[in-house]
Amino acid sequence: MTASLLRHPRLISLEGGEGAGKTTAINALRDALQARGHEVLLTREPGGTPLAERIRALVLTPDADIAHEPLSAEAELLLVFAARAQHVRQTIQPALRRGAYVISDRFTDSSYAYQGGGRGLDPAWIADLERRAVGLLPGLTLLLDVDVATGRARANGRDLWPDRIESEQDDFFQRVRAVFRQRAGEDPQRFRLIDASQDQPGVARSVVAAVDAWLAQEPEHD
Amino acid sequence: MTASLLRHPRLISLEGGEGAGKTTAINALRDALQARGHEVLLTREPGGTPLAERIRALVLTPDADIAHEPLSAEAELLLVFAARAQHVRQTIQPALRRGAYVISDRFTDSSYAYQGGGRGLDPAWIADLERRAVGLLPGLTLLLDVDVATGRARANGRDLWPDRIESEQDDFFQRVRAVFRQRAGEDPQRFRLIDASQDQPGVARSVVAAVDAWLAQEPEHD
Repeated sequence: MTASLLRHPRLISLEGGEGAGKTTAINALRDALQARGHEVLLTREPGGTPLAERIRALVLTPDADIAHEPLSAEAELLLVFAARAQHVRQTIQPALRRGAYVISDRFTDSSYAYQGGGRGLDPAWIADLERRAVGLLPGLTLLLDVDVATGRARANGRDLWPDRIESEQDDFFQRVRAVFRQRAGEDPQRFRLIDASQDQPGVARSVVAAVDAWLAQEPEHD
Repeated sequence: MTASLLRHPRLISLEGGEGAGKTTAINALRDALQARGHEVLLTREPGGTPLAERIRALVLTPDADIAHEPLSAEAELLLVFAARAQHVRQTIQPALRRGAYVISDRFTDSSYAYQGGGRGLDPAWIADLERRAVGLLPGLTLLLDVDVATGRARANGRDLWPDRIESEQDDFFQRVRAVFRQRAGEDPQRFRLIDASQDQPGVARSVVAAVDAWLAQEPEHD
């Protein structure tokens, strides 16, 4: 029994490392879609439902009672996919069914990048979890790509309290970036690579241009 | 890359449905092993580490903020295995390495029974998670078997506030029991089937007798 993986044209994910400017890009994308008259749901991972946000906290910002317990890579992967299973069923699918666009700040590609590339877990395992627990692939994924040094300098200027993943070292983020770029290269129909070394307005313009071109190319979404 | 599954002679699990008398049996088993001079660690699933106990609460006793959110079968399975990955690495393996016996109130067989039999998830998926996230099989599993009506009558007399799984219907527990019994039949070397329709002292005596016979048969554990 192998579960399937369906690409949904109205599910858009934004991916990228630390300090890539995802928030600015997401807001610009929402405005562009709403200006065309679409309902837009903004959501994020890990999270996107009340239970999934509780799982997010266990992974990223554990409180004092559990912060001392090392989280194994395997448990991290399973927690992230448990949250994603809830996110898809409780939040994303209902919005897609009523005709909305869904913009997710991170989706399954982040598991390939962070738990696969960063933590070294088997990508075949991640692919199996994607088919069995998620079953859904974005129609469009915008990868905001910036070199690790630039991205981290931006993130460090912003975060007073880096979370568990933000506290990793540069080689971790080099592996994360390499997997993101590899996946974008392997699926050019779904991915658009955005140069996130630009300033924030430049990134936002690139994102909107990429989405405009994508919408024009696939008019059945409108 | 396929992970392996190692049977450890000093890991003992107790399995069974609701009201099977696991707690009494576990205490009798601990006393018998300690009387032979062994260090014994009692632990339980889902749980067994501070983080895994937090995952347990999300699955079994969600608080008011998240109790209204339906937990998908897939998320339930992944949460239980995330907890188990922590349990094995943080609690079970360190105890086994220092020579202790570990007695776990439930282990991976419960996932085959509850999430496989009860929820209908693919046992091949569970087997894959077992290899990749757990890697460890008990040397001895005591299955406390009792018919569903008897077990539930006992559990209902005890639990003022049944948890999420205890609130399931009889057909769910019939499927759980069927999977437990099937697994016991398929691996008679590991499993001992205990008649849990007996009274509590009778169950405890059967458990101790089964463990005595098992220890005598495999003297290298001593």
